[in-house]
Amino acid sequence: MARGDRGVTPQSEDFSSWYNESVTKAQLVERGPAKGTMVIRPYGYRIWELLQAELDRRIKDTGHENAYFPLFIPQSYLQREAEHVEGFAPELAVVTHAGGKELEEPLIVRPTSETVVGEMMAKWVSSYRDLPLLLNQWANVVRWELRPRLFLRTTEFLWQEGHTAHADAAEAMRETLQMLEVYTEVCRDIAAIPVVPGEKTPGERFAGAARTFSVEGMMRDGKALQAGTSHYLGTNFAQAFGIQYLNRAGQRELCHTTSWGMTTRMIGATVMTHGDDKGLVLPPKLAPHQVVIVPIGRGEEGAAVDAAARELAGRLKAAGIRAHVDDRPQVSPGFKFNDWELRGVPLRLEIGPRDLAAGTALLARRLGDEGKVAVSLDTAPAVLAAALEDFQDFLLRRATDFRASRTAIVSAWPEFAQQVAVGWAAALHCGRPECEDEIKAETAATPRCVPADAPAESGTCVRCDAPSAYGKRVLFGRAY
Amino acid sequence: MARGDRGVTPQSEDFSSWYNESVTKAQLVERGPAKGTMVIRPYGYRIWELLQAELDRRIKDTGHENAYFPLFIPQSYLQREAEHVEGFAPELAVVTHAGGKELEEPLIVRPTSETVVGEMMAKWVSSYRDLPLLLNQWANVVRWELRPRLFLRTTEFLWQEGHTAHADAAEAMRETLQMLEVYTEVCRDIAAIPVVPGEKTPGERFAGAARTFSVEGMMRDGKALQAGTSHYLGTNFAQAFGIQYLNRAGQRELCHTTSWGMTTRMIGATVMTHGDDKGLVLPPKLAPHQVVIVPIGRGEEGAAVDAAARELAGRLKAAGIRAHVDDRPQVSPGFKFNDWELRGVPLRLEIGPRDLAAGTALLARRLGDEGKVAVSLDTAPAVLAAALEDFQDFLLRRATDFRASRTAIVSAWPEFAQQVAVGWAAALHCGRPECEDEIKAETAATPRCVPADAPAESGTCVRCDAPSAYGKRVLFGRAY
Repeated sequence: MARGDRGVTPQSEDFSSWYNESVTKAQLVERGPAKGTMVIRPYGYRIWELLQAELDRRIKDTGHENAYFPLFIPQSYLQREAEHVEGFAPELAVVTHAGGKELEEPLIVRPTSETVVGEMMAKWVSSYRDLPLLLNQWANVVRWELRPRLFLRTTEFLWQEGHTAHADAAEAMRETLQMLEVYTEVCRDIAAIPVVPGEKTPGERFAGAARTFSVEGMMRDGKALQAGTSHYLGTNFAQAFGIQYLNRAGQRELCHTTSWGMTTRMIGATVMTHGDDKGLVLPPKLAPHQVVIVPIGRGEEGAAVDAAARELAGRLKAAGIRAHVDDRPQVSPGFKFNDWELRGVPLRLEIGPRDLAAGTALLARRLGDEGKVAVSLDTAPAVLAAALEDFQDFLLRRATDFRASRTAIVSAWPEFAQQVAVGWAAALHCGRPECEDEIKAETAATPRCVPADAPAESGTCVRCDAPSAYGKRVLFGRAY
Repeated sequence: MARGDRGVTPQSEDFSSWYNESVTKAQLVERGPAKGTMVIRPYGYRIWELLQAELDRRIKDTGHENAYFPLFIPQSYLQREAEHVEGFAPELAVVTHAGGKELEEPLIVRPTSETVVGEMMAKWVSSYRDLPLLLNQWANVVRWELRPRLFLRTTEFLWQEGHTAHADAAEAMRETLQMLEVYTEVCRDIAAIPVVPGEKTPGERFAGAARTFSVEGMMRDGKALQAGTSHYLGTNFAQAFGIQYLNRAGQRELCHTTSWGMTTRMIGATVMTHGDDKGLVLPPKLAPHQVVIVPIGRGEEGAAVDAAARELAGRLKAAGIRAHVDDRPQVSPGFKFNDWELRGVPLRLEIGPRDLAAGTALLARRLGDEGKVAVSLDTAPAVLAAALEDFQDFLLRRATDFRASRTAIVSAWPEFAQQVAVGWAAALHCGRPECEDEIKAETAATPRCVPADAPAESGTCVRCDAPSAYGKRVLFGRAY
């Protein structure tokens, strides 16, 4: 089948084209009418809903409550935290007219909500008894993008943003790291992305944060993608917005705040972590259809096969498996196989008249690595539940192996440049922003994070021979 | 306790103040920094989440899929449907600058998404096989409000908006009425609001719709509140955006589309349907806490009571009941009773040392209408589950009785004006927009809907004696 029609450009030929073709042909997403915006189609949105449910449960289990803050933020609010406004100014969308009139003060369409949340927290917190204040919201945000990429960088995206206020630095740091752990877990256990949690270097910090942490995943082209961030904001926003409390001794103190977010770019991350030359490969826990059943047959035989497929789908659904019967009459089984491979469905079951007579169906894994296996219709729910679990584990193992094969401990500069062309380099670095800039200019690589679990190590900078900072190696890579 | 502090203005004294004080003191919501916006606090947002879950399930069960369309709509899109832009123009918020530059074409912050959805549907639909196309999105929308009211009319609000495309008018009408039925059911069975479903008169139609239907609830001040709307859009948007398909005979035809929405104003509707002079009364299905347990006691006795309260809460939760223990040490039991009454918790359990010794707790319903009843701790989960069901039914019955007591069949004009001052009037009407305008000018009442189940009836208009239209009585009332 012609690539231009249903297939996609191979990853090795042009990863960027492969990605764009895969996400659009699989009907996850397409460009919206306004520049840089996206339309998330039902198949893509379902992935987001599945991820949301997993993440929302963990956010609530760790004591947070959902709330909703306004989309529009008075321009003056952003200006109260100097670094924050400087960081976001180039990306802002501004409402100047509303209700048929020019507004006295322009309104910013939220790029993130620290400022408006800070204003409200200042009203809600007065005593140590009001702390900690643990909030989260699911919302859309807008950051103007000059070079938009579907899911990865769009003018508008969906996310959750957590915002918390605490009595002291230690508790706020525990919160920051707790949510980093939640992100690590969701990436690993749900999206099968073996991310590396760690701290950002000062040059890569969130605008207004005291410390920024992230989880970094490796995509199949060896580039890094930041899959979630968690910020310890110190007292910066508390100072700017007056978030204060009376402690047990009756003295006024500033709160220490945090914020943390995960976005719809996770859908792109999942595609780029697991996909292959046939298109998407979805981990079962995020697959809208975990199993697609393709009935094969015409006429009377066809009717019997269709009925058996529906009956089986019913039993699979009752067992908690997201099963779908593709009974489209106008397309061939071969077309359907390609279509569901492109769309990343983990498992496919074929049922023809002969299979039906034998009480079986043919099972094929999306990666085609085990050939087709006959499965008894009677025991299919249990067999498929186990096969889905296996497939989920397999994808995580495969991604972990791939990451390991593309990560190297690097001590010499020439080796560094070679390594970041194909993957990640773990290197000692001096910590100077100018040195980071030089590395970026020469290799397009940036410090992704200082991994939380890296062993203590020191020596000289891989680039400039100055003494190393951070007390351990920094992970460098090109990034999305 | 002083009203200014914790209590609220009685409904009979000033319903509007009662409402504002109730929703803010109960910590559902408060004003946001930008004019007309609201901050939905965790207790209010939880009500929305509970409603969302119920509505989303029904939207999916009727075959719809969730998707997400962009917040920003090019200005030219809105202008393509003449009535649509005329209806919304005064309420639009406009982004003129983004990314540090003035935009070539201003972007509208969506007031509703028919236009952008129409543009995308035109791309996705080509054959009768692509129909029906059944979509829904959960999103925020912006309509500039000069006289904002929390939840009821705010510059930004949250909603779901369904958008569907069909091959013919009959199927699109079935869809329109199906979703009206879903809204009726959610109001009745979840929010305990006995709404009246019916069709809007032409003067009250959605801008761009061929026919508009709504569900109307009666608030405790006798005014009507539109709790959900469902529109048959005919081929208006299909024409404007080119949503066409090839039928089985290979001929090009226009689709018939629908749209339907329910919003965060449902939270306000729930408050105004059930609340009383003590504040909120929440139907159990929407109550964040269905049961609050107040342990009473100090010292060692207090510790034992606290432990028993927590143990009981655990058993209630295991039985699917949303239970909360109020063990705040700094406030008295009396304060807690008032607080949870204000916040509308359906059932309260008190446990003191003597109750504990007797193996019981004291149960009080929010309306205080059954006094306090001793409940065995052993059987509490089953007893409370039944009490919650009773309370849900009771609220629906009470609201239905109230509505009946405030609704009258009216045939003479003087009687009409008296009736709409306290509730609804079912009257014959000529259907002329000018006559509607006169009625509104004199009585502030508008036609709420032509009820779906009203018996056939004709005669002369209650106001102008011209022959009646619609073939049945129209429901008139003042409205939010």
